[in-house]
Amino acid sequence: MITVVILGGGNLALHLFKALQKSTESTVVQVYNRSKEKIAHLAKEVPITDNRSQLIQADVYVLAVSDGAIAEVSKDLTNRNAIVAHTSGSASLDTLSTNPRRAVFYPLQTFTKGRPVDFKTIPICLETEQEEDLALLKRMALSISDTVCTISTQQRQALHLAAVFVNNFTNHLYHIGHGLCAENHLLFDLLLPLIKETAQKIETLSPLEAQTGPAKRNDTSTLARHENQLKQENHKAIYKLLSTSIQTTYGKKL
Amino acid sequence: MITVVILGGGNLALHLFKALQKSTESTVVQVYNRSKEKIAHLAKEVPITDNRSQLIQADVYVLAVSDGAIAEVSKDLTNRNAIVAHTSGSASLDTLSTNPRRAVFYPLQTFTKGRPVDFKTIPICLETEQEEDLALLKRMALSISDTVCTISTQQRQALHLAAVFVNNFTNHLYHIGHGLCAENHLLFDLLLPLIKETAQKIETLSPLEAQTGPAKRNDTSTLARHENQLKQENHKAIYKLLSTSIQTTYGKKL
Repeated sequence: MITVVILGGGNLALHLFKALQKSTESTVVQVYNRSKEKIAHLAKEVPITDNRSQLIQADVYVLAVSDGAIAEVSKDLTNRNAIVAHTSGSASLDTLSTNPRRAVFYPLQTFTKGRPVDFKTIPICLETEQEEDLALLKRMALSISDTVCTISTQQRQALHLAAVFVNNFTNHLYHIGHGLCAENHLLFDLLLPLIKETAQKIETLSPLEAQTGPAKRNDTSTLARHENQLKQENHKAIYKLLSTSIQTTYGKKL
Repeated sequence: MITVVILGGGNLALHLFKALQKSTESTVVQVYNRSKEKIAHLAKEVPITDNRSQLIQADVYVLAVSDGAIAEVSKDLTNRNAIVAHTSGSASLDTLSTNPRRAVFYPLQTFTKGRPVDFKTIPICLETEQEEDLALLKRMALSISDTVCTISTQQRQALHLAAVFVNNFTNHLYHIGHGLCAENHLLFDLLLPLIKETAQKIETLSPLEAQTGPAKRNDTSTLARHENQLKQENHKAIYKLLSTSIQTTYGKKL
């Protein structure tokens, strides 16, 4: 059994805790958070602490904390003979205080409070300072997910950036669509089948092949009318910039 | 049985044909396309023609043609005592040549060749010149879809614009994510679970609540690093503009 201490009390920490507790290969032996109150609801299931000098021994320490807190929290783990892994998509391995067994355990997903996730489907991207630590971390990752890969810092950072485009920015486009519906007394629900199909389509087609719409068709009269319809300047700017980017993408291919 | 003639040979025309043929309330009695070749594969199932003077009588003529062709094709239908409906999200009712029974039958979805669609889940938005034509068109729409609504031209145009944001622009963000993966020798498949979760999350949370990421957190150091990582100027510009728009959205709420 791989023993794990989780450090952090946010959504990722909680979802990771649940997934590891369900696995038959890994077990969480302690959860740390600087505010004990935030993890108090776990006390029935696992020992909890808010004191880093009271961390118990484990095979892996997982830092599910914000990027800004990685250095500070990892300072107290430098002398453990254990893997110390952060979970950040963008922080380098060096962010962890000097530790010969530092590593990265990055689950590529967005975690929301109260929303169950199926960890099996979440890719977990690994990186280790020592090659010999990879086997254990891989076994731990495979105990909760079907997709585990080893990637470099640069690849992870590219993936994290790509995730901002397909998740954060996409959600903001949904928000703009939501606002347009609300302004016109339309239920946002009307857009849900389209949103679903847009996301599903690229499971079988590349986004380059899946593109449709007035910008792709270079339908300038619809583009002009749409811009006119938008009331907010930043929405007009987004409309223009993304349409131009689509036109350029397909123009280049002619 | 409601009899329907479909005019058009594109993806929407074909998907609509299949859905109507499966319904027990509506039936397609003819399909017209200016190029007979494009619809030749339907000839075993339905009479086809490329000659608008040979259109047979029906209850409803559905124009599944491009916006630019609506006026031209509808010219030859002015004297029919039948509903003549276009399927465009943005064209006004007036785009159809003068016909006392003109209407709109707008299925809010993206249609891709060779990709089956479940019409039951696709919202169909109706508009009619004559109120008394609404009942028949509604019956026809309900024969293939579970979601049918009557909306004004302005509402439909807003919905179409919202669809550009949540579908066309979202797909372009997927394309940028795809490119970032390819540049870094990463499989785009790694992003699919995230894309799926992003689309599913807003079925239970509003996009405003669902937003995450560095711009939402106002994490300026990650924002700066991400901008630096991007090589293409238009990607940098999109990153900046969408991040600023997210920051403004949440700044406003503080």
